[in-house]
Amino acid sequence: MIVAMQDHATDEQIQQVIERMVELGFNVHRTTGETQTILAGVGTPGQFEITEFQVLSGVHNAYRISSQYKLAGRGFRPEGTRIKFANGLVVGGDEIVVMAGPCSVESRDQIRLSAQQVAAAGCQFLRGGAFKPRSSPYSFQGMGVEGLKIMREAADEYGLLVITEVMEISQIEPMLEYIDCFQVGARNMQNFNLLRELGHVRKPVCLKRGIAATIEEVLLSAEYILSGGNYDLMLCERGIRTFETYTRNTMDVSAIPVLKKLSHLPVVADPSHGVGKRDLVPPMALASVAAGADGLLMEMHPNPDKAMSDGAQSLYPEQLKELLAKLRQLAPVVDRSIAPAVAQVHA
Amino acid sequence: MIVAMQDHATDEQIQQVIERMVELGFNVHRTTGETQTILAGVGTPGQFEITEFQVLSGVHNAYRISSQYKLAGRGFRPEGTRIKFANGLVVGGDEIVVMAGPCSVESRDQIRLSAQQVAAAGCQFLRGGAFKPRSSPYSFQGMGVEGLKIMREAADEYGLLVITEVMEISQIEPMLEYIDCFQVGARNMQNFNLLRELGHVRKPVCLKRGIAATIEEVLLSAEYILSGGNYDLMLCERGIRTFETYTRNTMDVSAIPVLKKLSHLPVVADPSHGVGKRDLVPPMALASVAAGADGLLMEMHPNPDKAMSDGAQSLYPEQLKELLAKLRQLAPVVDRSIAPAVAQVHA
Amino acid sequence: MIVAMQDHATDEQIQQVIERMVELGFNVHRTTGETQTILAGVGTPGQFEITEFQVLSGVHNAYRISSQYKLAGRGFRPEGTRIKFANGLVVGGDEIVVMAGPCSVESRDQIRLSAQQVAAAGCQFLRGGAFKPRSSPYSFQGMGVEGLKIMREAADEYGLLVITEVMEISQIEPMLEYIDCFQVGARNMQNFNLLRELGHVRKPVCLKRGIAATIEEVLLSAEYILSGGNYDLMLCERGIRTFETYTRNTMDVSAIPVLKKLSHLPVVADPSHGVGKRDLVPPMALASVAAGADGLLMEMHPNPDKAMSDGAQSLYPEQLKELLAKLRQLAPVVDRSIAPAVAQVHA
Amino acid sequence: MIVAMQDHATDEQIQQVIERMVELGFNVHRTTGETQTILAGVGTPGQFEITEFQVLSGVHNAYRISSQYKLAGRGFRPEGTRIKFANGLVVGGDEIVVMAGPCSVESRDQIRLSAQQVAAAGCQFLRGGAFKPRSSPYSFQGMGVEGLKIMREAADEYGLLVITEVMEISQIEPMLEYIDCFQVGARNMQNFNLLRELGHVRKPVCLKRGIAATIEEVLLSAEYILSGGNYDLMLCERGIRTFETYTRNTMDVSAIPVLKKLSHLPVVADPSHGVGKRDLVPPMALASVAAGADGLLMEMHPNPDKAMSDGAQSLYPEQLKELLAKLRQLAPVVDRSIAPAVAQVHA
Repeated sequence: MIVAMQDHATDEQIQQVIERMVELGFNVHRTTGETQTILAGVGTPGQFEITEFQVLSGVHNAYRISSQYKLAGRGFRPEGTRIKFANGLVVGGDEIVVMAGPCSVESRDQIRLSAQQVAAAGCQFLRGGAFKPRSSPYSFQGMGVEGLKIMREAADEYGLLVITEVMEISQIEPMLEYIDCFQVGARNMQNFNLLRELGHVRKPVCLKRGIAATIEEVLLSAEYILSGGNYDLMLCERGIRTFETYTRNTMDVSAIPVLKKLSHLPVVADPSHGVGKRDLVPPMALASVAAGADGLLMEMHPNPDKAMSDGAQSLYPEQLKELLAKLRQLAPVVDRSIAPAVAQVHA
Repeated sequence: MIVAMQDHATDEQIQQVIERMVELGFNVHRTTGETQTILAGVGTPGQFEITEFQVLSGVHNAYRISSQYKLAGRGFRPEGTRIKFANGLVVGGDEIVVMAGPCSVESRDQIRLSAQQVAAAGCQFLRGGAFKPRSSPYSFQGMGVEGLKIMREAADEYGLLVITEVMEISQIEPMLEYIDCFQVGARNMQNFNLLRELGHVRKPVCLKRGIAATIEEVLLSAEYILSGGNYDLMLCERGIRTFETYTRNTMDVSAIPVLKKLSHLPVVADPSHGVGKRDLVPPMALASVAAGADGLLMEMHPNPDKAMSDGAQSLYPEQLKELLAKLRQLAPVVDRSIAPAVAQVHA
Repeated sequence: MIVAMQDHATDEQIQQVIERMVELGFNVHRTTGETQTILAGVGTPGQFEITEFQVLSGVHNAYRISSQYKLAGRGFRPEGTRIKFANGLVVGGDEIVVMAGPCSVESRDQIRLSAQQVAAAGCQFLRGGAFKPRSSPYSFQGMGVEGLKIMREAADEYGLLVITEVMEISQIEPMLEYIDCFQVGARNMQNFNLLRELGHVRKPVCLKRGIAATIEEVLLSAEYILSGGNYDLMLCERGIRTFETYTRNTMDVSAIPVLKKLSHLPVVADPSHGVGKRDLVPPMALASVAAGADGLLMEMHPNPDKAMSDGAQSLYPEQLKELLAKLRQLAPVVDRSIAPAVAQVHA
Repeated sequence: MIVAMQDHATDEQIQQVIERMVELGFNVHRTTGETQTILAGVGTPGQFEITEFQVLSGVHNAYRISSQYKLAGRGFRPEGTRIKFANGLVVGGDEIVVMAGPCSVESRDQIRLSAQQVAAAGCQFLRGGAFKPRSSPYSFQGMGVEGLKIMREAADEYGLLVITEVMEISQIEPMLEYIDCFQVGARNMQNFNLLRELGHVRKPVCLKRGIAATIEEVLLSAEYILSGGNYDLMLCERGIRTFETYTRNTMDVSAIPVLKKLSHLPVVADPSHGVGKRDLVPPMALASVAAGADGLLMEMHPNPDKAMSDGAQSLYPEQLKELLAKLRQLAPVVDRSIAPAVAQVHA
């Protein structure tokens, strides 16, 4: 860490800062300029808050120079993480994966039809919410475990993997047997108890960025899961909240190459939540892949106009199909390919 | 709800919108202008998403004209909610309450000293975190139930009430016997399962605004608790995330009069998290009360320079005392008074 | 416009709103529900502020249902605007254009070398600032008219068009003879006097989105230029200000398809200012084109490490060349092509 | 400045950074830790961009440790700036000033009546816009110089000072004879040419914070004016743009104490633009003064319901009067008083 003292800070003030740094376990190097003193702390001290130093008397500013995340940093695994699923599919390699399906599990028929359409378009994962976080208590809250069973059945029939959202610790156990990948929603990105538990699970996790989370905070949340021993983790950009209201959120496409640079974890993009309007999803899906995404997570509904939630941002089946065709053309431009349909992975 | 069609929308498009409105239970009134048709839906239909209409063919825009919250709205209780605590103290009346204490419960001695100082300054509540949500997994995570016991003891000794944060459903039960008020932190404002459970509890709750939550979303989250039957709810403004980095967050002081206008619930302010730097806390505490706050929630530590968390934003005991003196002068300007120390409430 | 009255608004309140609407020139249609009255105003009244109605007594909310921009709207020219430059190059057609060059004009040699490299990479425009808006008064402020001459010379030598920023009305006249396209910077997006003057000029303009401007405000600013009679206008997304600090701004890639949908004007993207770091520029340039951009505006410097401004976000010449190669592969995926080098346009 | 190298950066990388620092005029001190090297640059070099270092090979991060503003910093004038107006009124001293009036100058009668009401309430300044920046080209654009004359006449009749907005350089000269204080609007906070010219004027200036401007950027803009030699400068907080849409902007009340701490310049607050709704103006005016503001700038209209602009946020004359009464009670709480009406200053 570094502390830049104010011009003409007193010896006593400087001494107080040095003592606190030493107390935390830093070796302190002092640089004395004409008017300003700079203190550099090196070593590997315990946890501290940099703001503590910023408000000390005589301090101009203080900077933390080492990342707070270690396991999530690119340096930990320079070659990048590849998550291998039961059926052999790999996320984080050369192939780009596509996860699609309705916002909510509404019925067996709806999910069966969705799975058929998702598979036909050439996707690898069926997504769908069995437990739904809704901002109004009067909205549809999901089918629960019954919804998980329906998803599993449909996915198996069409050779798909299942990804679905986990909202709290008590849901982890019952979900384990039905799903292939846990999804942590944006609202839970800093539900640290949940993250910690997911660190002890042996099942891949997809962690979505919170709508007000900085890139650094995403990586700190990832650290919670990694530090529990679960390294099968991918991150997901899905839009942040800004002043712009035309779109549901503002999709931070640049977070994709930034996360790929700072971390070894695969990064997928969710343009459906990023923009919130169906016709903007295909261009943003293409943009995400052009920017380096390892995968896409999108909402598609057999009949979006009748969807129980998020209908406005759900693709029509035909749109998904056309998008996949475009993605297959795009992937080689960024030296990638679209993963084959899961059935083919099996074969 | 209202749907404004695009200029020259076709009859077929208009008909499709009308059918969907009727299907949801609306009575539809149609206004035909020279170039534009407007459809007004009246009645009390079930849940729907306004975006669903915004993406229908031929629609210019669609507006929801009734609030999604009912119980949280000012109209539900025009006279305002008053929360009565076991010792007779009322939040939401003419008196302004002050809650203070350290960020984290660190030890019995630290809490006992805090309680003494908080009471001596004239506050009514002891705050302190036993369970700590920390953005880094390597930071101090709190003392847990042991911390709750310590708080209860100290609070009782000095005639204070206890407010502390609940982070997940499993903590509710063990907390019940030790505390007087649950606090839901900003990160959990949309942890809907937790909110729902707190709706079934018979103990006051203080719900903090999320750092990216709109005022309407705060009220929708409040609705979760109220709809469970727990009406002893207060809201808390504690800063939102903006582009400004000098302060930890940007405290939205205007949210105080807005929430008081839109809702009947008491509103308190947390300037410590709002600004994140000790010397800005007193002016922002005064500003909050000037703007109409029913109470203040602030961090104070017997020795902030050695605090295990949030030391930079914790007041020195002496500062808290001086602030209370100022608040006693300020309250009459807005036709209020500062609540007497709890010991006096008892007497 | 539409006014939704509060439940149980009085007849007097309703009457007051109707009178004000009629006064503004609206025909008012009234819908009376069980508890709520809705007033729809149709017709083409003069200017008014919707907030005026929002604060009238008894009003729940009021909505403006027609856009405030007319000439900028897609409906005004459904087929899209194509800007034709003197040398025959068209912006807004099937071909994507690339504009590149240093942030500041620093010397004749630097610009000549830049132009050579920009042309060699296959770009069509040379960009560079002669008048520089700098947030610190102590920073380099640009070479002025001398810089314009240098740009013109170099561009002519290598068959390029010149685009450069105009900062105030007095600069328009002297710039006319040296440049091919005016650029209005983000800080001047709402300098309405400047916009009005540019509406009277017969030279293309590229209007950049302000860092805090909504998409609707971009289109209103465009309206200033269009309403003066200058239809050779393109818009530019270059990043908005958000809470994220890793990147200089957050590039709102979704604004590209949104602007293309709402307006007939060509849309270009400036990933250099959008992200502020060189290595993020190529992925964001690709993302922008994948999302539908009609062109790119980027900073390149012959020696970025010695640049007098924006060196950190300036591409190395080699990077620009590689990027153009990728763009040529990408364009067909979105049914476009990269415009030929200007020299070829001439031929 | 400080550069923290990446762990295990090579000697060559470190050497390259040192060379660039020396080239800029820094004396470089090197601290070598177990894995990380830190370079501290001391001295007073010329202008440079810290991002230039952030993207150099092997650099973890780089920090600028001295402010870019010198004249605007508190250290330049620790005792604080007091601006003395022709009639003896001082801004920045113990007394708090109030500036009020309509958004736009609409007619002689409207302004005369406004001046009478503003004076009667006990304010010291008449505000009003003669040149209006409007986001739509079809909105009312102001009365121009004729409006200035009207303001001067009315202000003189009621013993008030005149503050009004300057939008471009060409307006400075004609305004000089009619006004007492220039106001630079939020949209022009980074119109550096305008700021520079105002630095050469001998007339006080009130500089408003831009809606997306950080506190540091406000001070850098102030530096433009100060460095021209005009020290009669006050700053104005008037709300920033955030995701919250209930209020027009989010008023950053904490910017008031922050600016007072970082700078010696007086700070006034404009709650009218900060919130955009009349009934929120009084609580936010009180909050601003409680937080330390040296003055208030507010919109009042004799008949807000008929105002040509900003009617929704303009106070009724009666509200202004009541607010002044409250402010007189509040000022002593923060050891201030409200300035006497200007007529009394004269006497």
